[in-house]
Amino acid sequence: MKIYDISMAISQDMQVYKNRDAMRPQLSVMRDYTDSNAYESQLSMHLHTGTHMDAPLHMVQGGDTIDKLDLSKVITWCKVVDMTEVSGGITRQDLEGKGIEKGDFVLLKTKNSFSDTFDDEFVFVEKSGAAFLKEAGIKGVGIDSLGIERSQPDHETHATLMGEDIPILEGLRLAAIEEGRYFLLAVPVRIADAEAAPVRALLLQNDPMDS
Amino acid sequence: MKIYDISMAISQDMQVYKNRDAMRPQLSVMRDYTDSNAYESQLSMHLHTGTHMDAPLHMVQGGDTIDKLDLSKVITWCKVVDMTEVSGGITRQDLEGKGIEKGDFVLLKTKNSFSDTFDDEFVFVEKSGAAFLKEAGIKGVGIDSLGIERSQPDHETHATLMGEDIPILEGLRLAAIEEGRYFLLAVPVRIADAEAAPVRALLLQNDPMDS
Repeated sequence: MKIYDISMAISQDMQVYKNRDAMRPQLSVMRDYTDSNAYESQLSMHLHTGTHMDAPLHMVQGGDTIDKLDLSKVITWCKVVDMTEVSGGITRQDLEGKGIEKGDFVLLKTKNSFSDTFDDEFVFVEKSGAAFLKEAGIKGVGIDSLGIERSQPDHETHATLMGEDIPILEGLRLAAIEEGRYFLLAVPVRIADAEAAPVRALLLQNDPMDS
Repeated sequence: MKIYDISMAISQDMQVYKNRDAMRPQLSVMRDYTDSNAYESQLSMHLHTGTHMDAPLHMVQGGDTIDKLDLSKVITWCKVVDMTEVSGGITRQDLEGKGIEKGDFVLLKTKNSFSDTFDDEFVFVEKSGAAFLKEAGIKGVGIDSLGIERSQPDHETHATLMGEDIPILEGLRLAAIEEGRYFLLAVPVRIADAEAAPVRALLLQNDPMDS
């Protein structure tokens, strides 16, 4: 079974949104072998750091929390779509003709995947792109930036997708992934009442249950 | 596709090991709709709280960290074995005759699954049980307690299993799961250099890739 890890490794020196210190994870060792016979640590992390899934509550007042997610949406075949030629926002025009169909979970591979430092000008989904994805009837969307939108004051991209209960997976690493069809595992950690949660996102090429 | 969620929900009032305050997760809201147009929070959590996977470093000096885990071990068919009649430690005798075979990922369902409060006398895997699992050549083991062992000063259960690179999944919730064969998804969050990581553990009854 071929497994592609499309998750960021969580560490203190990873890229974080806008390089904000408050977004930087802290891993603290509570005990180790200098004075104990075990090793234990603690993690403090902003829920929008690293590879994670947003729930509607993130951008919609009264929206659903991440623990309410229908898990069948994130254990599913998906399509990786090459957007590496796009700069700025991914528009309707960029997505048309890419074979995106009703029920697809779409992963957008952009230039973001090729840098491990935060780029203020990261590629995102512009509101017309979000409207296209909504109209296409997709099941979910993922992108390789830490946010699926930027510089849209009313958060139209989030609002459009969340209004349709379309899960949004952010912070993917897709540099090594060719355009095509894969089986996606992208199950968020079960955090009660939260607006997001970390995800260990994987792509499988073959059927895991055949092995 | 039938999906069973066998993970604990992470919340401030969840059961934690020995009811220690240091093990209790803290979810802090950084911004919400009282004065912002978005909702964001931060989680601080001990890595042995809730459903999680131990890496060898937890109990073996110089042992591998969780990010080194072979993911094919935790995306696999598994066997749920009923140990609900056992009190105290699960021994070799308890496990014999249960159909445990080479290459199995074994999930031990015990009385622990039926309580949401921490029990000082939780059911665990006694060292003879760990030796049996090692000799059987299992691929991995999971249990519904927050630790797979207690009251064994030299941590023989952890040492025996970790010496064979057998992943240890702790903090499962198996009350609703019948003994039998399922497909396990138990992929830990990708935390660099850590001795453990949270897992959203799921059991599937059917082949997810057929749906």
